[in-house]
Formats: sequence, structure tokens, C-alpha cells
Amino acid sequence: LVDAGLVKESGGVAGSVTKVTSGIGGQSRLGFRGVEDLGNGLSAVFALESGIKVDDGALDNSTSTLFNRQAYVGLKSKELGSFTLGRQYTMLYNAMSQVADPFGAGYAGSIKNLFATAGANTRVSNAMVYASPVVNGFSGELLYALGEQAGDSTAGRQIGFGLNYAQGPLNARLVYNNRNQDTAAVGTTPAKKQDEAKNTLLAVNYDFTVVKAFFAYATDKGLNSSPIPVANAFGYKTAPKPSTDARDILIGVSVPAGPGNVLASYTSKDDKTVNNQDATQWALGYIYPLSKRTSTYVAYAKIKNKNGAGYTVGNNNEAGTGDKAFNVGIRHSF
Amino acid sequence: LVDAGLVKESGGVAGSVTKVTSGIGGQSRLGFRGVEDLGNGLSAVFALESGIKVDDGALDNSTSTLFNRQAYVGLKSKELGSFTLGRQYTMLYNAMSQVADPFGAGYAGSIKNLFATAGANTRVSNAMVYASPVVNGFSGELLYALGEQAGDSTAGRQIGFGLNYAQGPLNARLVYNNRNQDTAAVGTTPAKKQDEAKNTLLAVNYDFTVVKAFFAYATDKGLNSSPIPVANAFGYKTAPKPSTDARDILIGVSVPAGPGNVLASYTSKDDKTVNNQDATQWALGYIYPLSKRTSTYVAYAKIKNKNGAGYTVGNNNEAGTGDKAFNVGIRHSF
Amino acid sequence: LVDAGLVKESGGVAGSVTKVTSGIGGQSRLGFRGVEDLGNGLSAVFALESGIKVDDGALDNSTSTLFNRQAYVGLKSKELGSFTLGRQYTMLYNAMSQVADPFGAGYAGSIKNLFATAGANTRVSNAMVYASPVVNGFSGELLYALGEQAGDSTAGRQIGFGLNYAQGPLNARLVYNNRNQDTAAVGTTPAKKQDEAKNTLLAVNYDFTVVKAFFAYATDKGLNSSPIPVANAFGYKTAPKPSTDARDILIGVSVPAGPGNVLASYTSKDDKTVNNQDATQWALGYIYPLSKRTSTYVAYAKIKNKNGAGYTVGNNNEAGTGDKAFNVGIRHSF
Repeated sequence: LVDAGLVKESGGVAGSVTKVTSGIGGQSRLGFRGVEDLGNGLSAVFALESGIKVDDGALDNSTSTLFNRQAYVGLKSKELGSFTLGRQYTMLYNAMSQVADPFGAGYAGSIKNLFATAGANTRVSNAMVYASPVVNGFSGELLYALGEQAGDSTAGRQIGFGLNYAQGPLNARLVYNNRNQDTAAVGTTPAKKQDEAKNTLLAVNYDFTVVKAFFAYATDKGLNSSPIPVANAFGYKTAPKPSTDARDILIGVSVPAGPGNVLASYTSKDDKTVNNQDATQWALGYIYPLSKRTSTYVAYAKIKNKNGAGYTVGNNNEAGTGDKAFNVGIRHSF
Repeated sequence: LVDAGLVKESGGVAGSVTKVTSGIGGQSRLGFRGVEDLGNGLSAVFALESGIKVDDGALDNSTSTLFNRQAYVGLKSKELGSFTLGRQYTMLYNAMSQVADPFGAGYAGSIKNLFATAGANTRVSNAMVYASPVVNGFSGELLYALGEQAGDSTAGRQIGFGLNYAQGPLNARLVYNNRNQDTAAVGTTPAKKQDEAKNTLLAVNYDFTVVKAFFAYATDKGLNSSPIPVANAFGYKTAPKPSTDARDILIGVSVPAGPGNVLASYTSKDDKTVNNQDATQWALGYIYPLSKRTSTYVAYAKIKNKNGAGYTVGNNNEAGTGDKAFNVGIRHSF
Repeated sequence: LVDAGLVKESGGVAGSVTKVTSGIGGQSRLGFRGVEDLGNGLSAVFALESGIKVDDGALDNSTSTLFNRQAYVGLKSKELGSFTLGRQYTMLYNAMSQVADPFGAGYAGSIKNLFATAGANTRVSNAMVYASPVVNGFSGELLYALGEQAGDSTAGRQIGFGLNYAQGPLNARLVYNNRNQDTAAVGTTPAKKQDEAKNTLLAVNYDFTVVKAFFAYATDKGLNSSPIPVANAFGYKTAPKPSTDARDILIGVSVPAGPGNVLASYTSKDDKTVNNQDATQWALGYIYPLSKRTSTYVAYAKIKNKNGAGYTVGNNNEAGTGDKAFNVGIRHSF
């Protein structure tokens, strides 16, 4: 998939900027995946997926990890479910991008601008994932990611699970994600105990045919449970403080209009700490398909920050620089 | 494409060196590209292309950009031309490698040893390119690359255009490239105004069947318009100074001989500044095809530097270390 | 090929650690290779192969070299043998992984835990390799890798050769590898003369059908001829000293059992220097194939270090952290 377009961001401390950006709606990517049938309903699966920037050709992650999107191998059974090992999506992120957000976690209106998806909340390395088979629309998923720190088996580990229901027009997921942020002793550096980051999310959408309605509610508790994507985008004297106790809400719609779809969403973050740094976002977009594999799009979103909050309008791939952004671009799957 | 061979460079300050080198004739590369027909003469196109070094397996660029050669997505119409977005070639480089140089900007005789192609003169990120359809052999191209610097929309931008004619034995291009080298203020670092780099090139070749003749004339004006590939290859007390006002000329031939082609060129740089650091280059090569996809080659070139000039004989992929170089190698397209 | 599993390492200074690891049996990899028939028994060949980590998606080498496993292009003749240019395996490593070790240089029992394979002993850049055709089971290989240091043609070069015999149940190789570790003068840094690393290996296996027997004997002489994979894994006051004169022995078996194979080996390093830091390793494993392309495995190995030796149980891809390790995982070729 390649996705590139123009982004105009304004409201940031350094002024407006117009950019050619990659991955506005979904990160541009290139991958390899495969399934081998082993007989008896059993199969071997693998995936290697690279996130790339079509604007400058670079790998799309700060650490230059080649297959930073996904890298796993595992076994899949029709009756017993699948077990996979490697770098994988969290249930939390999948629920946001696949169920909660009409913008699919992309474009100016991305749920990621306010909900907590940063870093290991999206994908996690060294993860074992078990996914149950689907029974009457219900399925479950379980993730356990090792911290791999010598001498302390809980330090740095991550646990997640999801309960999913998908049948007819209704799609619902209840997910939980817990990151242990302790670090083990290394050489003469002593071990460090830190609060866990706990995120819980209920995501629902229902397709009424004339309109598809979206709803999400999340709670973020503990250190790093609700990170701010850009440290101090508005140049405040006192930088915004990440909340350690927040509630997030999204209400959205996707309305078929002409050959494409109008998307709209209202997202809010309610900071329950003493700082009370709340924010709300309005977003509007239109996706115009040129074929099943290619589409063009426009989107606009605006955030209102309160009490020194510092949230920015980004897109699937960038955190943004200001409180307003306009996108226009093209997206092509291959 | 994989291209590797032996290179012996001599005349540099550190003495002679014999190397296994990748990309002597053309950078070794691996890419993905596609076209989707959208109907009505419209199609979606994309390309992702990686430059690699077959001698040690590394990515072939100092910044480890994965798809440093090309990365773009766009739309192409038979009647209206094409519009592409991403990391793309400049018209300047295409004219040099495709029309001006019998060595195709590769091997010891590369036009790049003296003409100005360094850095963003070859490819540029965040670029929008419009290419017109061909009418009676004529076509035009326009490039606009955003500087993406907050608060200043002209800083760092690049503009290029080309007027092309190709019909029968004649192939001609007139191209212009302009790089704005200003930088916007970032945090407490103030904005910096710098002279623009302006390059103009006329490239012509004509196929007389018994010989194909090549001619190119270029002017390079402004800061960084004529960079020196290696800072001080000959260990002078006073390092060579890049010219800010230069004229470049190339005269070359490609002569069918036996199963292959003999290539020869004379290239000169005339530095019009007070430093008068001129240089001339003679080059000779032979390409021997083993099949349509595979060929072997030998090439030799020698530069004469005047008044403390410091140009080096490189190849498509390396800047070289001395004023003489010999190449022998193999090239295989896949 | 993707290979991932769980590894539990114990006995190291920082305590036990359980990890999701990639490349336990063989490094996970992704590559491109091709052959073009040029007629008359001649063909052009190339390979580009990337080592990857399925546990976190990263490139599997400390220098982020994209095609760090292999990158070469060359010509192959049925009658004259093949000549290839680029980054290639040493004869030394091929003999260890293909002939000497029942574990194929992978899993907890890897020959690499004690034999000398680190760094340029496995693969070497800028290498020219000539491989003769096979005559009555005999064949020979010759490697010459340029040091590419200006002004000194021997500094940093590597030379290797192998004499191979493979016919019926017998497989034998005698290989030699010599690394010149001199460095040439660069700028004001003077040249440095250093002892060469010389490794000689005899590797033999014989298939008795009910059991396949393996034997290897190696001598390691000179600086860096017998490196220690982990500097001081056990936290000794005096770090272990790499031997400059050592003898290595491996005795192993592979026994068909049920659908799979039981593997076992005994490996020892005899340090002939005054430090006398010897080590011995016992290893046991079972490979259970799910198909021709997919298998699961378990393996265990334990090292006994003597006189302050510091060898660790790793696997194909990791050097390990302790003197014991247990592996369980899955491997899938694609």
C-alpha cells in the first residue's frame, strides 16, 4: 500500500507548514506473508511487513527497524485457533483502527490524536498471541509479550486480551492492555519499579445501511497510559503533562454519499487528574474511490485544547505540529 | 540490477587502492513498481526502489534510507500526462544520464565526475512532478519539491523543469534546476538566508548509426551549484573551493564495435570564479554484452586538475579517491 | 525462512532470562536470487539475502546492513566452475554448518558456541570466490577478499580455500582461512601491523543410515583466531581472555527417531596458551517436521568452563547469556 498527499498543518508554535506526507490514511507499507497448509486443518503462517515513507523513501520508524509493522510466525488450526510468535499488533490498537474509528485511525480525524496508542500500545515485540476460533460471532484473543530482562521475568512485560463480537451489522470489542514498566538491574544500574500503564477500551459500530455509527469509550490509568504525541507543540512555558487517569470518548459516522463516503467524528479526552488538561476534536473527511485498490481523499480536523493541554492533529503516520490540519491525497494498494 | 567489479584508483593522497565495488555502471538496485488501469486512459502508478551495495550488502546511501532511489505514487492519464508525489529524479539528472553521457552517468567516464549532480541534484524528496504527454516528439516536465519548514514556505524548496524532444535519431533536452537553500527558524536557531543553486543544462545526442554522438553544455550558478564530490582528495594545503559560477562541457561518442560498443568522452569544467579551478577528463570504455540482461565492461578515465582543483575519477556509485581509475566488472539485470 | 521460539538462558551473571528469539536454528531471512542462462553452459547468477529478527522485526545485524547475509553477482560455467564477486560465506563457516555440526550451527547445541566463527569468519565483504566444478566427488574453492585500504594492498585482506569431497555416504572438507588484521594509514593515523588470524578445519560426516556420525577438528592460531562471543558473561573479576592458540573438537550424531531426528553433540575447546581456559559442551535436540517446509524443535545445551573461560550457550543467531540454554520453537521456509 502506498498513500501520499499534501498536509497543511497550522496553529503550532513554529507557524504553518505544508508538506508532502506519506501514510496519511494508512502507513505506506510493503510486506511478505504466507500460509502453508499442513493438513488436518492446521497451517503454518508468517508475515513480515515494513512501514515506509513514500515522500522520501525512508523506513517509517525512528529506529530504522526493517519490519517494524509486523514480523511473526505461527501455527493456525481451524478448530483450536492460532498461536503466533513475534512482533504483533495489540488488541487495543486493532479495536481502535478496525472497529472504533470511522477514519480507521488515519487522516486528520484519526482517533490516535486523542486516544492512547503511542509506542508499544500499537505493536509489541517478543509477543505470543493466541486467537480463538470464532463461535457464534464471538472470539477471544490473548497477548503476552516478554520483557526479556535478565533476572526479572515481569519487568517490561505486556499483557493484553480482547473479547470480540461480530455478526450482521454489529461489531463490538472489549479490550484490555497492561504494560509493566519496571526495568531490571543491568550491570551497576539498579532495578527500577514503575507504575503499570493500564488501558481499557469498549469499541462498537453498527451499520444502519444509510449510515454506519461508531462509538468508543476508554479509560487510561497509570504512568504513560495516555502519552502526548508531541512534547510541547504550542510552545507553552509549562509543557503539557501526560495524564495518568483519563477517559476518552469517540462518536462517529460514515455516510455513503455518491461514489464515496463522508466520514465525521467527535473525539474527546477527559483528564481526571488535578491538571484537568482536556481536549476535544472535530473531524470531517471524504473518501473517493477510483477503483477497489485506489482512492483519493480529503480530510480536515481541529482540536480544542483546555487548561494547557497540548494535543495536535496528526494522521495515521505523523503526530502533527498544530491544532488544525488539512489533508488531500491518493492511496493505492498493491 | 546488480553491478559489481574491480576498481583500481590511483593518484589520491593516500595512494592507490584496488576495490570490489558495486554499481560501477549503474547503482545495484532492487525495486517494486506497479500500474493499475483505472479505465478511461487513467492509471495509478507507484515505485519503490532501493539502492544496494553488492560488495558488502549494505544499503547504498549514507543515511540508510531504504528506498533512497525512488518512492512515489501518482496518477497517469494518456491525454493529460502524469502527476506523481514522493521521492523522484530531477530533470537535471535524467537529462545527464539518459541523453548527455555516452557512459550513462556510470563507469570511470561518468559525467558526474565534473558536472554538478551531487545530493538533491539527482533525486529530491517531497516532490510533485507533472509530466506532459508527448506531442510530435515534444514533451515537458515540471518539478516542485516542498522544503517542509514550518513558518517559511520557500525555505528549502526545489524547482525544476525540462523541455524534451525525442524523434528519429535526435534526442535533446533543455533543463533547469533551482534549489532554495534558506533554512527556517527552528526553536531558538534563527532563519538563514542563502544563495540559490541554479543549474541549466542542454543535452543532445544524435544517432548516425555508425556512431552516436553526444553533446552537453551546462551552467552552474550560486552556492552549492557545483559541489566537489571529495573534499580534498589530493591532500592540498588549501582544499579546493567549489565553484559558484562554472560552465561544463561534454563531447562523447558511442561506436558499435564487434558485439559491443566502444564509449569515449571528453568532459571539462570551466570555473569562472577568481579561483579558476578548472578540470578536464578523458574517458574510454567498452561494454561487452553476454545477453540482453547481462554484460561485462572495462573503462578507464583520467582527470587533469588545474590551479588546485580537486576533482576525482569515480563511477556511478562512488566519488573516487584519485585522478585516474580503471574498472572491470559484470552487470546483470533481473 | 522464519524461525522463532522461546529461549530460556541461565547461569549468566544477571540471572536467568526467558526470551522470544528469532533464528534459533537458522537466522530468519528473506532474499532474492536468480540465474540467467547465457548459453554454452554459462550462466549469470546473483543473490541478495537479508537476515531479519522475527521477534521484533529488526534487521539482524548490529550495523543495519540490509543484505548482510549474502550479496553477490557472478558467472557460472558447467565446465570451468563459478566466479562470484561480493559479500559471501567463508569456506570455514560453510564447512562447519553444512558438514561438521549435526545441529547445522543452530539451536542450543551450535558448533559456534565454541568453534571460531565470529565476525568475518562467517561472511566476508568485497570477496572474490572461485569454485571449481565437481570431479569424481572432489571440488575446490578459493576466496580472496580485498582489504580496500588505500596505499596498502595486503592490509585487511582475507584468504580462504577449501578442498571438498562428497560422494555416497561420505562428506569431508578441509578448509583454511587467513585474515590479515593490519590497518593502513588513514590521514594522520599511522598504519598498524597485527598478527594474522589463521583457522584450519577438518570436517567429516558419514551416513550409516541408522545413524549419521559427525566429526570436526580445528586449530585457531593468532590474534582474534578464537574470539569469545560474550566479553564477560559470568561477571568474573578478570574477564576471560580469547585464546590465540586453540584446538577445537566436535563429535556428534543425528539419529532418525519417529518422524524426526534426535541430534546430539559433544564439543570442546582446548586453549593451548598459558591461560588454559578450556571449555566443553554437551547438547541434545529433537527436530519434528510438520511438512517439508515447516518443523518444530526442542534443544538443550550446557557448557562447562574451566580456569576462568567464559563461553556461553547461544544459538544460530544469538551469543547467549549463560552456560545453559533451552530452546523450543517453530521454523518455516518460504
